[in-house]
Amino acid sequence: MDNRPIGVFDSGLGGLTAVKALRRLLPGEDLIYFGDTARVPYGGRSRETLLKYARQDIAFLRSFDLKAVLIACGTVTSTSLDTLRKENDLPVLGVVEPSCREALAVTKNKKIGMIATLASARSGAYERTLKGLDADVQVVSQPCPLFVPLVENGRFRQGDVVIETVAREYLTPLIEAGVDTLILGCTHYPLLKDIIGEICGPGVTLIDSGAASARALRQQLAAEGRLTDRQQGETRFYVSDRPEDFEKLAAVFLEEPLSRGAERIDIEQY
Amino acid sequence: MDNRPIGVFDSGLGGLTAVKALRRLLPGEDLIYFGDTARVPYGGRSRETLLKYARQDIAFLRSFDLKAVLIACGTVTSTSLDTLRKENDLPVLGVVEPSCREALAVTKNKKIGMIATLASARSGAYERTLKGLDADVQVVSQPCPLFVPLVENGRFRQGDVVIETVAREYLTPLIEAGVDTLILGCTHYPLLKDIIGEICGPGVTLIDSGAASARALRQQLAAEGRLTDRQQGETRFYVSDRPEDFEKLAAVFLEEPLSRGAERIDIEQY
Repeated sequence: MDNRPIGVFDSGLGGLTAVKALRRLLPGEDLIYFGDTARVPYGGRSRETLLKYARQDIAFLRSFDLKAVLIACGTVTSTSLDTLRKENDLPVLGVVEPSCREALAVTKNKKIGMIATLASARSGAYERTLKGLDADVQVVSQPCPLFVPLVENGRFRQGDVVIETVAREYLTPLIEAGVDTLILGCTHYPLLKDIIGEICGPGVTLIDSGAASARALRQQLAAEGRLTDRQQGETRFYVSDRPEDFEKLAAVFLEEPLSRGAERIDIEQY
Repeated sequence: MDNRPIGVFDSGLGGLTAVKALRRLLPGEDLIYFGDTARVPYGGRSRETLLKYARQDIAFLRSFDLKAVLIACGTVTSTSLDTLRKENDLPVLGVVEPSCREALAVTKNKKIGMIATLASARSGAYERTLKGLDADVQVVSQPCPLFVPLVENGRFRQGDVVIETVAREYLTPLIEAGVDTLILGCTHYPLLKDIIGEICGPGVTLIDSGAASARALRQQLAAEGRLTDRQQGETRFYVSDRPEDFEKLAAVFLEEPLSRGAERIDIEQY
């Protein structure tokens, strides 16, 4: 048993889809969430910049005594997970491997699609992981650089011609390639699940990478006997820019109001 | 006469519309351009974050011996110009006042529209400046948070339903308010001139804030006898993230290939 909190971070709001899954799966755990809203979006940045930002994000989270860190960001996981694991003496989970395992468990034709930010797609991390787990799998990747700005501006509702046009453009090559499984390789994308599902049709199973990594974390903590014995945990939110802007959209991501407000910190001090 | 270079900065690519105007108006001047591509976009950030970023941007530029700094960023000008002027012992020009003066010179019905980032619109800087110059003017402001991400993703061409839908949404309230002059209060927006012009119609004059500030800078240097006597100056480009990404779109903004590549610097060292 381990009652210390779990640290979770993302560039902005996206990681809240993982928080939502964690709250559902592990309601007793305390969570510390950091959203790097002063430097969002991460998706177009270089590896060096991303590693630097991720190190600061983890250094802030580790100012608390944590039992594990969940990198709820496809971009950081894709580009920096190995280095961050080596540098930290506690379990550090990412979103790539859990979603790859779930995708391989559901695909029938072994054609898996993967949508993510530019940096994640460029890294090749999803392809490498999928092929490492099953050499026969065929992977079709598509960067979707406008999804994060559109979601962060609240444009994720069905019937919005802007998000629907952009989504159709990004998804058409994957549909034409005949994928039967699609990894949402960025934690912002579950907000677009209805739109993506409608464009791809019922023949394509969507894999939510935040939820997959929440399930993987539960499994690991359970195996190590380190789940909490509390019934009800709490979540504290920290951001690097205006808390007000974060709080408004966070309620949409979590599909419930925040129990307490977000607090602002200066991430460049870490 | 003063042959030292002029420093110019923006969050990313937008300021290049001011560089283009400067190159045309003052072809003999040397320019040092810094685009903060590791931290773009600036438009949704808080005043404190923006001031911190702008101080670092100017500190980097002043590692060169400059004769003037042009803040080719509506967001930084709107939120931080006064402070930055006080802190620097050289002329620091912004994009707000020059475009306000040009707008007042052309408006006939004294109804002026202003489009900009969220932070610029929130600051109220354009309204204050316009009303300070002419108390009778009526100002209608509209934040356009998706314009910068869309432009930085290359979506600024006529016929693109995504940018045209977003632009029509943003501009309709201004058209309905009957403005006859529209300030493009962000240096990214001149790339959208054709689309904005078509939606607003011939009755609305568009004011390019980057070009207006380039004209104001020429006037000031000429009045002080500090123009260069060179015939042909050169422009050096610095960025805080991958130069390759910057170089590709920079050629589009400048409407000519870069004479030399961009160099990457670590802005957080400044």
